Amino acid sequence: MIVVMQSDATENDIEHVVELVRSFGLRDHVIVGTDRTVVAAIGDKRDVDTSAIETAPGVDRVVPILAPYKVASREVKPEPSEIPLGPHAVVGGTRLAIIAGPCSVESRSQLLEIAHAVREAGAVGLRGGAFKPRTDPYKFRGLGEQGLELLAEAREQTGLAVVTEVMSIAQVELVSRYADVLQIGTRNMHNFNLLSACGQSERSVLLKRGWSATLSEFLLAAEYIINGGNHNVILCERGIRTHETYVRNTLPLAIVPAVKRESHLPIVIDPSQGTGHAYMVPAMCRAAIAAGADGLLIEVHHEPERALTDGAQSITPEVLVRTIQEIKQIAAAVGRTV
Amino acid sequence: MIVVMQSDATENDIEHVVELVRSFGLRDHVIVGTDRTVVAAIGDKRDVDTSAIETAPGVDRVVPILAPYKVASREVKPEPSEIPLGPHAVVGGTRLAIIAGPCSVESRSQLLEIAHAVREAGAVGLRGGAFKPRTDPYKFRGLGEQGLELLAEAREQTGLAVVTEVMSIAQVELVSRYADVLQIGTRNMHNFNLLSACGQSERSVLLKRGWSATLSEFLLAAEYIINGGNHNVILCERGIRTHETYVRNTLPLAIVPAVKRESHLPIVIDPSQGTGHAYMVPAMCRAAIAAGADGLLIEVHHEPERALTDGAQSITPEVLVRTIQEIKQIAAAVGRTV
Amino acid sequence: MIVVMQSDATENDIEHVVELVRSFGLRDHVIVGTDRTVVAAIGDKRDVDTSAIETAPGVDRVVPILAPYKVASREVKPEPSEIPLGPHAVVGGTRLAIIAGPCSVESRSQLLEIAHAVREAGAVGLRGGAFKPRTDPYKFRGLGEQGLELLAEAREQTGLAVVTEVMSIAQVELVSRYADVLQIGTRNMHNFNLLSACGQSERSVLLKRGWSATLSEFLLAAEYIINGGNHNVILCERGIRTHETYVRNTLPLAIVPAVKRESHLPIVIDPSQGTGHAYMVPAMCRAAIAAGADGLLIEVHHEPERALTDGAQSITPEVLVRTIQEIKQIAAAVGRTV
Amino acid sequence: MIVVMQSDATENDIEHVVELVRSFGLRDHVIVGTDRTVVAAIGDKRDVDTSAIETAPGVDRVVPILAPYKVASREVKPEPSEIPLGPHAVVGGTRLAIIAGPCSVESRSQLLEIAHAVREAGAVGLRGGAFKPRTDPYKFRGLGEQGLELLAEAREQTGLAVVTEVMSIAQVELVSRYADVLQIGTRNMHNFNLLSACGQSERSVLLKRGWSATLSEFLLAAEYIINGGNHNVILCERGIRTHETYVRNTLPLAIVPAVKRESHLPIVIDPSQGTGHAYMVPAMCRAAIAAGADGLLIEVHHEPERALTDGAQSITPEVLVRTIQEIKQIAAAVGRTV
Repeated sequence: MIVVMQSDATENDIEHVVELVRSFGLRDHVIVGTDRTVVAAIGDKRDVDTSAIETAPGVDRVVPILAPYKVASREVKPEPSEIPLGPHAVVGGTRLAIIAGPCSVESRSQLLEIAHAVREAGAVGLRGGAFKPRTDPYKFRGLGEQGLELLAEAREQTGLAVVTEVMSIAQVELVSRYADVLQIGTRNMHNFNLLSACGQSERSVLLKRGWSATLSEFLLAAEYIINGGNHNVILCERGIRTHETYVRNTLPLAIVPAVKRESHLPIVIDPSQGTGHAYMVPAMCRAAIAAGADGLLIEVHHEPERALTDGAQSITPEVLVRTIQEIKQIAAAVGRTV
Repeated sequence: MIVVMQSDATENDIEHVVELVRSFGLRDHVIVGTDRTVVAAIGDKRDVDTSAIETAPGVDRVVPILAPYKVASREVKPEPSEIPLGPHAVVGGTRLAIIAGPCSVESRSQLLEIAHAVREAGAVGLRGGAFKPRTDPYKFRGLGEQGLELLAEAREQTGLAVVTEVMSIAQVELVSRYADVLQIGTRNMHNFNLLSACGQSERSVLLKRGWSATLSEFLLAAEYIINGGNHNVILCERGIRTHETYVRNTLPLAIVPAVKRESHLPIVIDPSQGTGHAYMVPAMCRAAIAAGADGLLIEVHHEPERALTDGAQSITPEVLVRTIQEIKQIAAAVGRTV
Repeated sequence: MIVVMQSDATENDIEHVVELVRSFGLRDHVIVGTDRTVVAAIGDKRDVDTSAIETAPGVDRVVPILAPYKVASREVKPEPSEIPLGPHAVVGGTRLAIIAGPCSVESRSQLLEIAHAVREAGAVGLRGGAFKPRTDPYKFRGLGEQGLELLAEAREQTGLAVVTEVMSIAQVELVSRYADVLQIGTRNMHNFNLLSACGQSERSVLLKRGWSATLSEFLLAAEYIINGGNHNVILCERGIRTHETYVRNTLPLAIVPAVKRESHLPIVIDPSQGTGHAYMVPAMCRAAIAAGADGLLIEVHHEPERALTDGAQSITPEVLVRTIQEIKQIAAAVGRTV
Repeated sequence: MIVVMQSDATENDIEHVVELVRSFGLRDHVIVGTDRTVVAAIGDKRDVDTSAIETAPGVDRVVPILAPYKVASREVKPEPSEIPLGPHAVVGGTRLAIIAGPCSVESRSQLLEIAHAVREAGAVGLRGGAFKPRTDPYKFRGLGEQGLELLAEAREQTGLAVVTEVMSIAQVELVSRYADVLQIGTRNMHNFNLLSACGQSERSVLLKRGWSATLSEFLLAAEYIINGGNHNVILCERGIRTHETYVRNTLPLAIVPAVKRESHLPIVIDPSQGTGHAYMVPAMCRAAIAAGADGLLIEVHHEPERALTDGAQSITPEVLVRTIQEIKQIAAAVGRTV
């Protein structure tokens, strides 16, 4: 941590900061610059709220130096992690992980039709919500456990790994019984109790970035899960909220090289939530893979106009087939396969 | 809902949209403009995901007309609601509700010292976290139930109503035993299961806006609580995430007149989270009251430099006293008292 | 500047950074921490692009320490500046500067009617655009020089100081002939050639913050004007672009205490652009003054429904009268007068 | 335009809105819904500020239906435009346009070394600033006309088309003498007088999106240039300002399919400004092409650590060579060539 003093800080102010730093168990190092003095505080005290030093007299601001995440970082584990996606696939290896399916499980016939279609198109995972977080309490909230049963049936028929959302601690055990991967939605990325609960599951966890979380907060959320004992975390970028209006969310693909530099965890991209409009999804699928993403999470519906949720951003199985064909060529350019 | 067709939409495209609209149980009304045709869909079908119509051929976009919230809106209840803040005070009446206290309950002596100080300064509520949501898993996470006991003791000594955060469904019953008001933090505004659980409590709920939630999402979150059976919701603005860096959060005070126009619920402002820097807090307290807010939620610490959490944005009791003096005059200008 | 090395940086990497630092004419200071080494670079070399050091091997990031602005900062001039608003008023003194008038000068009768009304309400300045920057090329773009003549006539009749926008270097001389204060609009805050040109005018300059500029960029824009030789700069906050949709812009009033801490320049608030909706303007006028602003820039129209520009955010003279009454009481609470 | 009435609007309110609509020369169409009445206003009156109707009694809000841009839209010209990039290349055809070079022209040897290197790597255009817009007045602002002369010499030696920024109206004629393409920077996208001046040049114009402009504003800025008489506009996305801190700007690649749907103009991507960090540039180059962009604008420097401007985001010629190799394969997947 670096404490930057104001230009008119007194000797007493500086001494007081030095004492504070020492009282936190850190070593101090005072550097007198041309305009200002800075006090470097050396040591790793993650449990102390050192930012409070900014309220001391004569202090301009406090600049943290150490990244707050540890076990999710490449400093601790330099080689990339490969995370299981059910028994037959991994995320983070040479082969890209395409996970596709409806936003919500609506019915047996709907799910099975889509599951077979995405399997044939080349997907290795099946997404589909049984419990749906809905901003609007009057909208369809999912089939619940019946939806989980249908997902398990679809897995049996297709061999696809099942990825589905868990919204509360109470659901973790239930969903773990049916799913291969527990999805934590963007609205729950900061739900620390849920993160910890998933840290005790034996299932892999697909963790979506909060729509206005920083990269650091995203990795700290992964750290909650890992600290709970579950190392199998797949990061998922699904777009952030900005001033833009031609999209529902802005999809920041530069997070892919950033995650690769900071962390050993794999990252997949959700171009459906990430744009909000079906017509943009193929372009963003291609771009994500070209940027180096480890996979995709795509909403697919055979009849988007009548989907109960997220129809506007769901592509049809036909579009998925075409998109995966394009991705195959792009994958080769970045040393991956589909 | 208005469906705006593309300028080159065909007769067939329009007919297809009309059929879709009717199949959702809505009446249609086609308006042929100079450049484009629009299809107005009349009726209230909140359970249908009508935005999916945008994927139909020839559709440019779908514009919703009805607000998604109902019971939180002024259309349903035009007069402002007064919500209990413990047995002795309300939020939303002529008297402003000043709620102050430490970010976290750290110890008995810390809490009692601060509680007495804010009481003398003119506060009617005591804030203080026993369960702390922490982005960083290595930081102090609160004293838990022991913190709740200390809050109850402070209430007994001071008469202040206790406002404290509830982070998970499992805590609702426990916290309800000790607190007068359950606080739902910004990270949990979209935690719909928690909202519903608080809807079944007999305690008032102070609901913080998610840091990138829209106003509509904020009121829908309140609607979850109300639909659960609990009408006692206090809205709280605590700042949003923007590109600004001289603050931790940008405090958008125009939400006060907006809430007053859209809803009957009272709204209080948190200038501590809303800025992140203690030196800005008095100015934002004054501004919030001048804008018409129903109260304030302020972080106060007798020794901010050594606070375990949020010291950088905590003001001292002395500053609180001065600030409340200033607020008294401003309150008069807007027809309120402290 | 602090150069933070990666945790696996080699001795060679550190040495290379030290050499780079020295080659820029800065002194180096190496601090070996528990996890990482940082290199502090001491000295003030504002002409060098030191951020490029981040591309050197083993470097994690570069943290600047010095603020980039000088002559606009309080370090150089601790006491607040009072800037002339025409011959009879100043901005930054005890008396608040209320500047009001139509968005655009539309006609002689329109301008004079509004000018007299705002004068009677208590304004000291008259705003009104003769040259209008319009995002949409098909909209009304102002009366040009004829508008300037009308503004001068209104000043003669009312004694109000005239504040009007200058959009290009070519207009600086022309507008200076008619106006008391040159306004630089939000879209031109980064138009450095225009800033420099206004630096050579003898008129005061009202500089609006760019709608996504940082505070630092805002003060640097003022610095361009001051460096050109014109010290009479009035800062104006007019709202920033965020994800919020219930407002046209989000008005961040915490910039008032921030500017007071960082700079000696006065700051006024534009609650009309700052919200986009007339019904919010009185609340934001009150809040701005309570926060410590030095004045207001308000759009007023006697017939907002038919205004050629910005009608949606224009208040009527009647509302202005009421608002200024409320502000008088608030001003007293913060030691100011109207 | 659709005028949405409040649920408690009276007959008089509706009648008044109908009269307003008619007084603007528009036809009205009243639709009585279950909860609210809406008034559709039919006709195209781009010169009227219809949003002001929102201030009429009983009005909830005004929803525009027509896009504000015309000549930049696909409705007017459905087939994509190919825009000249000097005498030998176009932007918008099958062949991708790679434009690369230093941020600033620093010296003859610097420019020529880089120009030859990017030519060999496969670029068809040379970028390089002679006039530099600098937020910080103390930084290097370019070599001015001498820089233009060096660019012309580099073109002579390499055959590359020269793309360079024009910052003010006064520079348009001068820069047009030397450059093949006039670049309008992100800070000037809303400088309407400059846009109009470039509309009278015979050079193509590369128009960068303002860093918080909407798509609609971006296309309207292009419309200013086209309305001035110059149809040769190349759009360029360079990233937007958001809450993200691991990048200098967030690069929203979904703008590529959005522009392709809305406009006939080609769009290139600037991954250097669009990220701010050299290590991210190759990934974003690949992603941009995969998303369907028509070209790239890349900052290249042979010695980034010592670049006078933007070194942190400049890649070396070696990295450019590798990146263009990767792009070749990706181009094939989307039916393009390099």
